[in-house]
Amino acid sequence: MKGPRILIAFGGNALVERGEDATQREQLRRADALARTLAGIVADGAGLVLVHGNGPQVGDALIRVESSVISVPPLTLDVCVAESQGSIGFLLEKALRNALRRRRKAPEPVTVLTPVRVRSSDPALRRPSKPIGPYYPRYRARELRRRLGWRMIHEEGRGYRRVVPSPRPVEILGLDAVEVLLEGGRIVIAAGGGGIPVVRTRAGLQGVEAVIDKDHTSALLARRLGIDVFLILTDFDGVYQYFGKDSEKLLSRLPVSRVRRGLARGEFPAGSMGPKVEAAADFARRTGREVLITSPWRLADGLKRRAGTRVTAEG
Amino acid sequence: MKGPRILIAFGGNALVERGEDATQREQLRRADALARTLAGIVADGAGLVLVHGNGPQVGDALIRVESSVISVPPLTLDVCVAESQGSIGFLLEKALRNALRRRRKAPEPVTVLTPVRVRSSDPALRRPSKPIGPYYPRYRARELRRRLGWRMIHEEGRGYRRVVPSPRPVEILGLDAVEVLLEGGRIVIAAGGGGIPVVRTRAGLQGVEAVIDKDHTSALLARRLGIDVFLILTDFDGVYQYFGKDSEKLLSRLPVSRVRRGLARGEFPAGSMGPKVEAAADFARRTGREVLITSPWRLADGLKRRAGTRVTAEG
Repeated sequence: MKGPRILIAFGGNALVERGEDATQREQLRRADALARTLAGIVADGAGLVLVHGNGPQVGDALIRVESSVISVPPLTLDVCVAESQGSIGFLLEKALRNALRRRRKAPEPVTVLTPVRVRSSDPALRRPSKPIGPYYPRYRARELRRRLGWRMIHEEGRGYRRVVPSPRPVEILGLDAVEVLLEGGRIVIAAGGGGIPVVRTRAGLQGVEAVIDKDHTSALLARRLGIDVFLILTDFDGVYQYFGKDSEKLLSRLPVSRVRRGLARGEFPAGSMGPKVEAAADFARRTGREVLITSPWRLADGLKRRAGTRVTAEG
Repeated sequence: MKGPRILIAFGGNALVERGEDATQREQLRRADALARTLAGIVADGAGLVLVHGNGPQVGDALIRVESSVISVPPLTLDVCVAESQGSIGFLLEKALRNALRRRRKAPEPVTVLTPVRVRSSDPALRRPSKPIGPYYPRYRARELRRRLGWRMIHEEGRGYRRVVPSPRPVEILGLDAVEVLLEGGRIVIAAGGGGIPVVRTRAGLQGVEAVIDKDHTSALLARRLGIDVFLILTDFDGVYQYFGKDSEKLLSRLPVSRVRRGLARGEFPAGSMGPKVEAAADFARRTGREVLITSPWRLADGLKRRAGTRVTAEG
């Protein structure tokens, strides 16, 4: 592998129409479109690592689990995340194979299952805060709590929703395998959904019912692999100041110090831009390299520094 | 890697108590037990490839899909197989990591998603014959046919069951990645459930609603990887003549010619020992190497030629 190493992170919602159901047909279609964009990047010998999210897909998996609990044994969340690495990895890998099939010497995509270790002492494990899946009315929420042990929170006017811990990633298991495959010139799909969360106990590794933020896992993976170009794809062209207001303004450069200030002020929402700018700033600060945040459709321009937000170490 | 290359195939039911539900707790427990057995094999520098089946797990996945069809979009069978490569791969990989954690220089397990290509002209694709999932009463069978397009067959006295095609595997996608990882001394979990079935069309690779027999896929993978020792694990200590009768007798050696005769006579049942002896005979005939068929608990003795059935090229 001669070119730069690129890691691209994108949400599971990149495969789903906003606010719509995660139908398989739509996911196949969007995976194909995304793969065509990504195929353009590897043309010149770059090494490519892809980290996908799994929000809508795991939400649906949980509905499948609870809908069938009277018939078949339920699965825990770590296993649902593992399933989503299989299903979403397959959709992406297949789409990439198809997007690259007419190219000569095209790199081969490969999907690697990735458990990610979190600390059993991580305080997040005792404070479930990340809402996943649909809203439920009170009776069903009570039943899900009782039957499946789900922790449910109430949101005024919307109903009850499952919340799970979102601990920080500390170790990517199988990192060596990713390194070997990347070095061999393959496109590696890894750490899907932020990784399958496991903790180390006396009895060994054990899955935990949690989700790890895929942007934070991507930042860790990017550091460990010595990634040159770290890209975070979102639904927006970049990070905006005063987003949604008349005065909104794209921040084409976002220094780490500015991110820190913005996070302290609550400028970047927790469920959306917050973890992205935080993960980007973390990577930029530790490596001195920039991170690009943009949308799939501005990706090519973003790489030429003509679009998106560049998160930088220095002001 | 210095030692011999070993490929071990076993059913998804190796993780489930016979005739019982596939609870997660039981699967975790059995994965740990199996991993301790397998850990013994790699002690002396052997390369190890594992191919798991997914019968009970995919059966449950289909129940989850149809139980929730009124709430969330259904998944096709290829995607369910991909999910099972994720979930079962995770259980096995974690169990192996734990079984090996106290060993020095232990090989690291890694799970690779594996699409497997079948021929779009395979006549099996037009003749669904492999029953999967549970039995349904007539009304539900009709609904599943109508809503999900499932092909259902009726079994006198038992009810209706989904049937899907079981085409032959012709190409292991991602084979090179498996080779690189194996050569690097890793334990590779691959081709789970017989592989995610795909066909090549004008528009590229496309998933198909089918299952590929994991023993046939294992035989193909074993040939392509130049496997020295191909092992098929089952619930029985080996292949028996007159199985279940007073006169039953373990066949410690089973030449290819004898397999052919037995298959022609219907001596080896289609849903159970049939595909195993057929896949074993295919491998033995093409490579001249033996295949061992035995149970997990006789594995160590089997490797010393003290247990199980050896399928051999020559009489």
